[in-house]
Amino acid sequence: MLSVLPRNHDPRVLVDHATGDDAGVYRLDSGEALVQTVDFFTPVVDDPYLFGAIAAANALSDVYAMGGRPLTALSIACFPEREFPTEWAAAIVKGGYDKLSEAGCLLLGGHSVRDAEIKFGYAITGLVDPAHLLTNAGARAGDALVLTKPLGTGVVATALKAGAASDDVVAAAASSMATLNRAAAEAARRHGARAATDVTGFGLVGHALGLARESGVTLEFDLHALPLLPGARQLARRFQPGGLRANRRAYEECVAGQAAVDQDLLALVFDPQTSGGLLICLPAEAAQALAAELSGASVIGHARAMGAASIVLS
Amino acid sequence: MLSVLPRNHDPRVLVDHATGDDAGVYRLDSGEALVQTVDFFTPVVDDPYLFGAIAAANALSDVYAMGGRPLTALSIACFPEREFPTEWAAAIVKGGYDKLSEAGCLLLGGHSVRDAEIKFGYAITGLVDPAHLLTNAGARAGDALVLTKPLGTGVVATALKAGAASDDVVAAAASSMATLNRAAAEAARRHGARAATDVTGFGLVGHALGLARESGVTLEFDLHALPLLPGARQLARRFQPGGLRANRRAYEECVAGQAAVDQDLLALVFDPQTSGGLLICLPAEAAQALAAELSGASVIGHARAMGAASIVLS
Repeated sequence: MLSVLPRNHDPRVLVDHATGDDAGVYRLDSGEALVQTVDFFTPVVDDPYLFGAIAAANALSDVYAMGGRPLTALSIACFPEREFPTEWAAAIVKGGYDKLSEAGCLLLGGHSVRDAEIKFGYAITGLVDPAHLLTNAGARAGDALVLTKPLGTGVVATALKAGAASDDVVAAAASSMATLNRAAAEAARRHGARAATDVTGFGLVGHALGLARESGVTLEFDLHALPLLPGARQLARRFQPGGLRANRRAYEECVAGQAAVDQDLLALVFDPQTSGGLLICLPAEAAQALAAELSGASVIGHARAMGAASIVLS
Repeated sequence: MLSVLPRNHDPRVLVDHATGDDAGVYRLDSGEALVQTVDFFTPVVDDPYLFGAIAAANALSDVYAMGGRPLTALSIACFPEREFPTEWAAAIVKGGYDKLSEAGCLLLGGHSVRDAEIKFGYAITGLVDPAHLLTNAGARAGDALVLTKPLGTGVVATALKAGAASDDVVAAAASSMATLNRAAAEAARRHGARAATDVTGFGLVGHALGLARESGVTLEFDLHALPLLPGARQLARRFQPGGLRANRRAYEECVAGQAAVDQDLLALVFDPQTSGGLLICLPAEAAQALAAELSGASVIGHARAMGAASIVLS
């Protein structure tokens, strides 16, 4: 939507909307840089407290994905006037607040409007040392790729809305979505990550494409190494969100190797994630060490010299 | 809505949601402070470019009202999927961008969602020297009050929706709403303002109440000195927005002197403003100088020792 606008030419803007990165970055006179992002969405779970926590973890994730540490938050709320108990609003707000607190992020204010449809989220500001910025542009051929959370939140949320997801399946997805990407970002830095992005609405392939293009490499994924949420593969046959189909239409021409693979598994690489994991690119031996150390993380592929397709599935 | 949450006790938080101020303020290690705010709303004019410009001027205003200078912006867009030409989206985004550019504020990114109802706005981050922070808390008895834009945007927008506002009336309101409060904030600082707020959704009385309470004074307004938009007084008899009635119910018990005054004029002190002016409190002689210098600004009353009512109309 912002593509109609001219590019920023101000040297203080280190990253903006034009590169497909997760957040904007603005250099302060002190040498540090602000890292800023905004995200909000409709409920992905039925429990209002948990929805608030997921909305916060999701918004904070963009700051972690850039190598930053979150400082402040402003809440964004669209709440219905009717048939919406004030206890629900309070639970959403409290769930978000507790998750912000876990991240050491301070809530400074917010804005709420009346709306027919519930939507909630945050604008988050963090600080980052520009020398340690994690962007889409640093991956090199030979690097390995680590994904830090399982895929499938879009499929599970769609099944939940259809009444077709078991409590266990929903609980596992919710727990994953509510998990901060802080530990993943700290591990990425410690192990010398060269590039990173978080996997959200454009799915694994959409966000990987941004990384492949900015870095000038092809990314190859081993589909059978992908971490999946419990139930996601089974549900993917029947419960594909509209965003999954849109991602597939948008990105499939950039993806080689789709014919050879299981179609349910293939769907999940296009599944839009809410509060998904980090996709981290780093030297191969460091990737093994990171995956061994970080619960839930898996080595899922590698970067190679740029070929005809930006993404290869195998 | 945030009142369910505990207060911030972090010493870096200089201002948060609890004081009714216009924006949150967070002290950086460098000594400067971030001033942050978020605002978005449904269209108040029919022209999409102008709506974008007004949304930007309105969001920026909270930073000016705190004595800050805006640095960065993130856009927040809720746009319909159907019957919403892409040219309209582009015009809204461009109108906002041009107004941000006028303010020297850089757009770093944003988030958009599909929604039945158009809503647009920004999260804005600025910097402020904590020693020059303009809050609600500095007014003293004897100070004069200056308002820098005319009242009536809520009444005019309501009349516009009913097809009852002339083109001239709408154009005057739109021009006022699209005007940055930058010059007003600069004049406030130059003339030694002790407190300020911008007049937005809670109307003149609602925002004045925040200032009266935080400063421990009563504010007296001379109703016949209030600057009004062309047509606002006539339209106020028939076109009172829901927010005006809600403000009146919420605040009228804190206001003395309502019986004696013209009822159409009285309505306008409760009218919710979009991108309204600054209400500035400063020594009386400085107030005259400020009003003489700043186009559209008027001395509209004064602060006095705290009495039974927080607001007095005369």
